[in-house]
Amino acid sequence: MIIICKPNISEGALQHIVDRIVEMGLVPNVSRGVHRTVVGVIGEEDQLRSMPLEAIEGVEQVMPVLAPYKRASREFQPVDTIVDVGGVAVGGSHFTVIAGPCVVESEEQTLAVARAVQEAGARILRGGAFKPRTSPYSFQGLGEEGLKILARCSAETGLPIVTEVMDTRQVEVVTRYAQMLQVGARNMQNFNLLSEVGRSGMPVLLKRGSSGTVRELLMSAEYILAAGNARVVLCERGIRTFEDSVRFTLDLSCVPTVLRESHLPIIVDPSHAAGRWDLVPALARGAAAMGAHGVMVEVHCCPEEARCDGPQQLLPRRFAEMMGALRAIARAVGKTM
Amino acid sequence: MIIICKPNISEGALQHIVDRIVEMGLVPNVSRGVHRTVVGVIGEEDQLRSMPLEAIEGVEQVMPVLAPYKRASREFQPVDTIVDVGGVAVGGSHFTVIAGPCVVESEEQTLAVARAVQEAGARILRGGAFKPRTSPYSFQGLGEEGLKILARCSAETGLPIVTEVMDTRQVEVVTRYAQMLQVGARNMQNFNLLSEVGRSGMPVLLKRGSSGTVRELLMSAEYILAAGNARVVLCERGIRTFEDSVRFTLDLSCVPTVLRESHLPIIVDPSHAAGRWDLVPALARGAAAMGAHGVMVEVHCCPEEARCDGPQQLLPRRFAEMMGALRAIARAVGKTM
Amino acid sequence: MIIICKPNISEGALQHIVDRIVEMGLVPNVSRGVHRTVVGVIGEEDQLRSMPLEAIEGVEQVMPVLAPYKRASREFQPVDTIVDVGGVAVGGSHFTVIAGPCVVESEEQTLAVARAVQEAGARILRGGAFKPRTSPYSFQGLGEEGLKILARCSAETGLPIVTEVMDTRQVEVVTRYAQMLQVGARNMQNFNLLSEVGRSGMPVLLKRGSSGTVRELLMSAEYILAAGNARVVLCERGIRTFEDSVRFTLDLSCVPTVLRESHLPIIVDPSHAAGRWDLVPALARGAAAMGAHGVMVEVHCCPEEARCDGPQQLLPRRFAEMMGALRAIARAVGKTM
Amino acid sequence: MIIICKPNISEGALQHIVDRIVEMGLVPNVSRGVHRTVVGVIGEEDQLRSMPLEAIEGVEQVMPVLAPYKRASREFQPVDTIVDVGGVAVGGSHFTVIAGPCVVESEEQTLAVARAVQEAGARILRGGAFKPRTSPYSFQGLGEEGLKILARCSAETGLPIVTEVMDTRQVEVVTRYAQMLQVGARNMQNFNLLSEVGRSGMPVLLKRGSSGTVRELLMSAEYILAAGNARVVLCERGIRTFEDSVRFTLDLSCVPTVLRESHLPIIVDPSHAAGRWDLVPALARGAAAMGAHGVMVEVHCCPEEARCDGPQQLLPRRFAEMMGALRAIARAVGKTM
Repeated sequence: MIIICKPNISEGALQHIVDRIVEMGLVPNVSRGVHRTVVGVIGEEDQLRSMPLEAIEGVEQVMPVLAPYKRASREFQPVDTIVDVGGVAVGGSHFTVIAGPCVVESEEQTLAVARAVQEAGARILRGGAFKPRTSPYSFQGLGEEGLKILARCSAETGLPIVTEVMDTRQVEVVTRYAQMLQVGARNMQNFNLLSEVGRSGMPVLLKRGSSGTVRELLMSAEYILAAGNARVVLCERGIRTFEDSVRFTLDLSCVPTVLRESHLPIIVDPSHAAGRWDLVPALARGAAAMGAHGVMVEVHCCPEEARCDGPQQLLPRRFAEMMGALRAIARAVGKTM
Repeated sequence: MIIICKPNISEGALQHIVDRIVEMGLVPNVSRGVHRTVVGVIGEEDQLRSMPLEAIEGVEQVMPVLAPYKRASREFQPVDTIVDVGGVAVGGSHFTVIAGPCVVESEEQTLAVARAVQEAGARILRGGAFKPRTSPYSFQGLGEEGLKILARCSAETGLPIVTEVMDTRQVEVVTRYAQMLQVGARNMQNFNLLSEVGRSGMPVLLKRGSSGTVRELLMSAEYILAAGNARVVLCERGIRTFEDSVRFTLDLSCVPTVLRESHLPIIVDPSHAAGRWDLVPALARGAAAMGAHGVMVEVHCCPEEARCDGPQQLLPRRFAEMMGALRAIARAVGKTM
Repeated sequence: MIIICKPNISEGALQHIVDRIVEMGLVPNVSRGVHRTVVGVIGEEDQLRSMPLEAIEGVEQVMPVLAPYKRASREFQPVDTIVDVGGVAVGGSHFTVIAGPCVVESEEQTLAVARAVQEAGARILRGGAFKPRTSPYSFQGLGEEGLKILARCSAETGLPIVTEVMDTRQVEVVTRYAQMLQVGARNMQNFNLLSEVGRSGMPVLLKRGSSGTVRELLMSAEYILAAGNARVVLCERGIRTFEDSVRFTLDLSCVPTVLRESHLPIIVDPSHAAGRWDLVPALARGAAAMGAHGVMVEVHCCPEEARCDGPQQLLPRRFAEMMGALRAIARAVGKTM
Repeated sequence: MIIICKPNISEGALQHIVDRIVEMGLVPNVSRGVHRTVVGVIGEEDQLRSMPLEAIEGVEQVMPVLAPYKRASREFQPVDTIVDVGGVAVGGSHFTVIAGPCVVESEEQTLAVARAVQEAGARILRGGAFKPRTSPYSFQGLGEEGLKILARCSAETGLPIVTEVMDTRQVEVVTRYAQMLQVGARNMQNFNLLSEVGRSGMPVLLKRGSSGTVRELLMSAEYILAAGNARVVLCERGIRTFEDSVRFTLDLSCVPTVLRESHLPIIVDPSHAAGRWDLVPALARGAAAMGAHGVMVEVHCCPEEARCDGPQQLLPRRFAEMMGALRAIARAVGKTM
């Protein structure tokens, strides 16, 4: 931790800062520059973090030296984490495609998509049973009935299931049917939910919130890891910017940043970012080329009749075409698919 | 709803669009321009909203004519809503100051602040018992013990209490001790929580998420209103932008926008936006001058020892000074405080 | 300057960093912490700034201790700068209103507005002769003819003129007619233009770019100050964010930030930020309450016939109403108007 | 153009809108819905664009149907533009790599980089002679001396030159030495400069501003096209967002958006976006996979001694490695390099 003092700091105020650091069992290192006095602190930065040093008179700025997350960092664990989702590996040199409809509407609809994406090479089936919707008047999902449909599609196709859990009270029921729990972008900082999925011990797909920084995404992963669950896959799905030709701006530069900072797998969801199907293949190719561990893509056999997010869902034949291109790129960057 | 067709739309595709609209019992109005054919739809736009028209081939863009919220709109209810919080009015011509510590640390600490802010003119006491923290290693609040302290401070001072509820499972216990439930910025789109506080019938303080638009804030209010609870107060507390001299950019222009679009009261939280106490008085004055119905401000008797957000908490004497300035401005814009 | 080394830095790389610092005549201060080695540098930080320390192997992060601007900082000049614009003071305890049409369309139009705003209390007349337009097909202003009209309106009313200069080649001609040169938001980082208006010695109104940070705004002011011209007034006019109910989000928190960091006056342009007249009075009141040194507002006698930005221009009677409210607020915060 | 009227619009106001449209020789189409009256306008939308319809009483919102750019649109020219830069093709199925130092420091430095990048497969040499710098105290480039060095390096290697022009007054001299003029991100809306490079007839590399939308980038291209110069290559180089792990967020989704909306080539600059060399190869791969027509990358033989942007410049051997990966990806997406 580095503490920059104001230019006019009094000796008394400086001494007060030094005293507070010593009280915590840490070692202050005062360095008087031409324009500023700087206090470096040697020792465990974590203890200082909870202390509001900026509130002390005479302090201009406090600069942490270390990242605030630990278990999620590559410094803590240098080797890549590979998460097993019902027998499918996510992470390392695998490029894993998750696909399925936005929302489970019926068994017929879900099974048709499941079969089509499996045939094209998807390894995990997605589909919403509990659906977060911005409008209270929109279709909110089939709930447990949707989970049952997903489980039957899994039994038919052998694909493991990932589906969203929105509320701490849903963790138990979702765990009964699915192989992986999704925490949606809007819940990235729903800390009670993070702790609860952490305690479940299940694989978790943690989506980045639309205004979450990479650092905050890793802090949210830390909640799950701190609850004793190391089976976390991160997912970039677009951030809010001023650009209005897409629903969200897919932040693909977060892929190499996460690869550098963390050992956790990172996949990309191009469907929710773009909000329109015609951009999805290009975004998925970009993700593959940049080293992502997979993509999650929405597919529907008749998008114009979809009960949710129709415009962003690919037709099965377009999904299959995209898979061909992804295979070529995955190979070019040394990934297996 | 206005549907813009692609320049090269076929007659078959256009007919398909028209058919889908007629199927829903609505009336299409086809207008062929020089560069584009446009289909206007007369009738209840809500029905069309759930239909993914953009997914139909030949559709370039779909433009809604109406706002997606209803009960929250001024069109639905032209007259201002005034919410009664334990005998204190929020809304209309009242300018209401809510103040208190960021988090309840002890009865002594909370009571000292409660007395100081009451004396200076605050009308409602705030304080966190359940605290959302970005780090799992930070102090998470005293829980029900904190609620009991708040209730005792309320009994001592007569100030009603507003405190945060983070999880659907907490609604019941918080309702037993507090007069108003706060839904935090990170939970603005926690739709299950919104429905649950809606069903509680309690006054709700709904904070805008850091990447939520005004429209989405009103849609989140709609969840509470749709559950039968009209006692909603909105709160602006800063949005994420590239500017890094503050923690969040306080979007004060949302105040007149909400006043125009909605009948619900809107207050401003300058403390969380700035993240530093020295900006709080200016931001609070700005909010008052622009017609906000109040501010919510954090106060601590010894910020450098605060267990949460010390740098943004005002000392009681600075809070009292700020109240003087706010009174003058409230008067200048025709509000009573 | 603080240099954070990577956890695994070799002794050789550390020595290389130390050598480079000593070569520059500065004193390195190496501090070995538990998790990181940190090198503090004592001496003139400016010299180090131009050295790409992050490019050295083993360096994780470089953190400057000082702001990059000097002459623009309050540390350099503690007392407020007051800029004289043709006899009108901007800065200090003055609250100065600049008003006029977006663009000069004709003498009749400009004079009518000039008289109306003067009567209502504006002290400086604005109006565009050279107009930056996003479309090459839009009206680009009357050029020198527009400047002549402004000069005649100034002669009639006694109001000094501020008008935009878009190109280094226009500085000379604008200087002949106007009392203050405006550098528009899109030119905040047109460094050649900044140097040129710096050399002119004229008062300069420097608008913040829509993606410029406060720090960058002050760096752009530094260009003008470094050219020997201290007559700079800063202007906040909205930044780009995801919020779409306004054209730009007016960043009013930059007002107290600039007051803290710099001695230069700061005014606010609510018209360009909002893009719609109905928000202008509220935004102007907010600016006044927060301590801005003035506002710049667009006024037109018939907005629906304006050749540029009609929707954001106030009618003269609405401008006069707004002035009444501003007077009350300016008084409440100790400013004279 | 679609005009949405306010719910309570009077018959007089509606008639006034209709009259104004008819005056312009256009045909209004009034459609009375349940909640809103909507006026569609058939005819040339351009004429209406300059009319401030939102300023008319009773108008709630005006929605354009067409994009504001023409010559830059794919509707205007369906076939891809391929720009010839001194014999090198940019656009179509070519994937063109532009590389070189950030700034020309000396002939020795520039020539060493030029030879290295040529050998690795770059086709155009970049290098700054006139450098926009945020600080007036930073190195501003060698000016015409730098241009002469670039010309000599071009003669040695056969690589054509692209270099920045910052000021209308520099266009003539840069044209004498370079084969392509670069308009930097900060000048994307320097409309006088756009017109001037348009008149030059030279190939232009137009960078997107850090807060420019795709639509605005295309409008800026329109300025150059409208001046009679169709040799425009667009360049994405990162936008401002709240994410702080990179200098700018590279908006790769703009690549497929531009490919859909325009016939102009689009390349990507990963160096300025990331601000750090270690992310550059991944970002360049992403750009190639998504269909960009090339990348522009900074290379330096000794980044820690670079006079500008050292941390983002690749060493020649890392550049060569990256080129290998780009070749594999370009092949996978059907591009030749």
